[in-house]
This record gives sequence, C-alpha cells and structure tokens, in this order.
Amino acid sequence: MASTQCVVVLFLITFTSTAFSRSILETSPKTHHSFTSNPIFIRRKIPKDGNAFYCESWRLSVETDNAGSWTQIPASCLDFVEEYATGDHYSSDLEVFAENALEFAKEVNVSSIHGKDAWVFDIDETLLSNVGYYEFYGFGYYDVDALNEWVESAVDPALPASLELYKELQNMGFKLILLTGRSESLRNATEKNLLQAGYSNWETLILRGPSDTDKTATVFKSEKRRELEHHGFKIHGNCGDQWSDLRGFAVATRSFKLPNPMYYAP
Amino acid sequence: MASTQCVVVLFLITFTSTAFSRSILETSPKTHHSFTSNPIFIRRKIPKDGNAFYCESWRLSVETDNAGSWTQIPASCLDFVEEYATGDHYSSDLEVFAENALEFAKEVNVSSIHGKDAWVFDIDETLLSNVGYYEFYGFGYYDVDALNEWVESAVDPALPASLELYKELQNMGFKLILLTGRSESLRNATEKNLLQAGYSNWETLILRGPSDTDKTATVFKSEKRRELEHHGFKIHGNCGDQWSDLRGFAVATRSFKLPNPMYYAP
Repeated sequence: MASTQCVVVLFLITFTSTAFSRSILETSPKTHHSFTSNPIFIRRKIPKDGNAFYCESWRLSVETDNAGSWTQIPASCLDFVEEYATGDHYSSDLEVFAENALEFAKEVNVSSIHGKDAWVFDIDETLLSNVGYYEFYGFGYYDVDALNEWVESAVDPALPASLELYKELQNMGFKLILLTGRSESLRNATEKNLLQAGYSNWETLILRGPSDTDKTATVFKSEKRRELEHHGFKIHGNCGDQWSDLRGFAVATRSFKLPNPMYYAP
Repeated sequence: MASTQCVVVLFLITFTSTAFSRSILETSPKTHHSFTSNPIFIRRKIPKDGNAFYCESWRLSVETDNAGSWTQIPASCLDFVEEYATGDHYSSDLEVFAENALEFAKEVNVSSIHGKDAWVFDIDETLLSNVGYYEFYGFGYYDVDALNEWVESAVDPALPASLELYKELQNMGFKLILLTGRSESLRNATEKNLLQAGYSNWETLILRGPSDTDKTATVFKSEKRRELEHHGFKIHGNCGDQWSDLRGFAVATRSFKLPNPMYYAP
C-alpha cells in the first residue's frame, strides 16, 4: 500500500510540476535536497499516430526553432531523449558542431584587431553538461531546489567537443567570453566548476546581475554583446544550445547551435 | 573494357561537377536533355571516423545552419540522404513542421488587419518537391540543363504536408504570398505546376526579375518582403527550406524551416 501511494505521489509530482525554464538556474539555492532516488515515470511508449519517426521529427523541430516556445518533452519521447542525451548520438552531434565552428574560426584573421577578436560561449549544455542531473532525476522531471543544488555542487563535466573547441580557439588567439543566464549568486560555483572541468583563462565571465532579472535571455545576452562591441570587441563566433543565446541584436558573424532536446529557455 | 571506361567517366563527371546552387533554377532552359539513365555513383559507405551517427549529425548541422555555406553532400552520406528523402523520415519531419506552423497560425487574429494578414511560402522543396529529379539522377548529382528541363516540364508533386497547411491557412483568411528564387522566365511553368499540384488562389507569385539577378536569395527575398510590408501586409509566417528564405530583414513574426539535406542555396 505504501509503495502504491509512493507511485501515485511521484506520478502527481511529475505531471503537476510547473514548466521548467532555465531561470531556475538564476535563483539562489534554497533548502537542502538530497539525491536519494529517481522519480518514477509513466511513459507512453507508443509513437504519436503510429509515426515511428515522430520523436526524431520533434527533436528536429526543437533544433530548428520551429517548435518555438515549448515547455515539455512529449511523453512518448522521454525514453528517446534519454537514449539520445546519454548515448553516442548526442556526442556525434556535438563533434560535428565543434567541427563546423572550428572550420569557420580558421577563416578568421585573428591578428587583424589586436586582442579584440572575441568568441562567445554560453555555459549550461554548451561548455558544461547537466546531463548527470537529468539522468539522475529522469528526463522531463525538473525540481528547482534540486537543480540549484546540483549547480551549486559544481560537479558538471565539460562537453568534450566544446572543451576541445575552447582550447583550439584560445590557441588561435580568440578572446573567450562566457555569457550565461546563471545568476551572479552562482559566480563562485560556476568558476569552480569551469576550472575543474578544464576551462581556464577566459576573458570575462558575464552572469545575470540584479538589473537583468526581468529581461529575456535574448535581450540580456544581446545587451551584453553590444557592450562588448562598445568595448572594441569583434564577436566572430557565438555558441549556445538555445536560440535565445544566438538571436537578437549585436549577433556574431556566425552563430552555432548546440543540440538540446532536454529543455527550452526563452 | 567499354563498361570500365563508362564507370570511370561517370565517376569523373560525378566528382568534378561544379558545385550546385539553386541559381540553376534561375537560368533559361538550354538544350534538350533526355532522362535515360541514372548516373553510376561510387559511394563511400564507411561512416566518417567510424561514427555511426555521422550522417545524422551532418544533417542536423545543415538544418541548424551550423554547416553554413556547404556545397556537397558528404560522399559517405549519399545513400543516407537518398533513404531520408524518399522514405518516411522526411515525410514525418514535414508533418511536424506543418503542425508547428499551424499551431502558430491559430494564435493569430487574422481579422485584425482586414485582408492584409500574409503568409509567405518558398516553392522548391517547400510547396513543390523536386525529389523525383534527385531520385532519377542520383542524389548529389546535379546537371543544370537536366534540372531546368525538369522544372520546365512542371511535373513536381506537392509536398503533402505543405499542401494541407496551405489550404488550412487559406481557410483561416491568410493571404498567401509565393516568393521564389526561380526566374521570371519560369513563371508559366511554375504556375502550371502549382495548379496541377493542387495549389490555387495565391495572392501573388513573386519570381526573380532581371534586376534581381545579382542579389543573394537573402537580399532578394528580404527586399520583396519589405515591399509587401510597404503595401500594408503583415507577414505573420514564412516557410522555406533554406535559411536564405527566412533571414535578412523584414522577417516574419515566425519563420519555419523545412528540412532539406539535398542541396544548399545561399
């Protein structure tokens, strides 16, 4: 009986939890939340309308931004997303993304504007991977406190293809700008995590300050890119897993979209 | 011996043919070219660096525009592209694209600006499908004369999901603008093909005129969208298979990218 109640409660938690947005990374950590167990999911396994490619097509709609402002992974695609994000397909997509970015970087005459050739990177799902969190809690399940605690614990590994790209760009002379929607309150944890994951010597780390709280990611990041331009930087490349990292104004010469079918940040 | 020579010649034709651009649709048809046989391809079947997901990742890089200005399908992905474009995966992607577009369209208050609520469609690989041409000649193989003749013959079928979307939008009161990089010289063939494929009652069909010849697709299409705005149209949606259909200025409120791993048009 107790276990039945547990299943029901977890089911309700899962399906009544509020829509996730990356803004949860921008609030201060609250109470302690221990990582004790995976929530139980009721997952619909039958593809939508019998379309075996539905989840692939849904993922493409997310990556091209056709899906727009989506809030939840379709129930029938939870296993698909888990398999994607924890398997070789995601790694392969990331490797090809990094190849594309590097190919463009090699066309840039880095020495042309001494010390001001810049490349912008987002952090979550761009330099660092929170897949461990999603794998532990179950894909499609989000808990603000737990995710904050996860980020505070600074245990994210680097996305290997991104780390390699980062180092290559650095060797080529680009100034690396880290521009994240994470709150200033997470600066120490973020720096610690980045260093532990192998990143170093960034030009600047820009987090969301108190005056940026009400801005969309697109506006916040565009404003910061414009400030960089006013300081003389030429933003050649920009890498992010969300379209809101890449669009708006003061956009880079080339923008590179990393895959992320796990969540949407407006 | 003769057949060996034939293979060698076809190999050379295949791998030395000039890079394709959709501009070939914008030149006048030249000599007669009969559709007699498929070229023979030497296809490298081994995935790049042993990465089983390479072609999937390459396709994603095209659809997100990470690949930028690409000219050739990777040799190891020719069979992959053929299987994609002639199978259920492409259809599924198109269906989800159309669902995304329709979902947004339903949010629009179409009656708000009487008779001026517009939706823009590209034509090739957006309303009409040239897959028959690519299937006949072999994916990755392009011949200017043959493609021109194909387009002149006006035999393209509709992409079913696009035709359904087109009709739904029309019923909702949107004015449908067809904006294509095809040359004015192809107006008759294009109108004939559209009508035969089931499209009708478009507001206007805009083709590339003599003064547009030297413009990139992005500039040509942006200028035409701006003209539409100057005529009082509000462009709510825009559908195209190339990023050059969707970007630039005077962009639609929402842009929808149809998949196309077959070719790139700048």
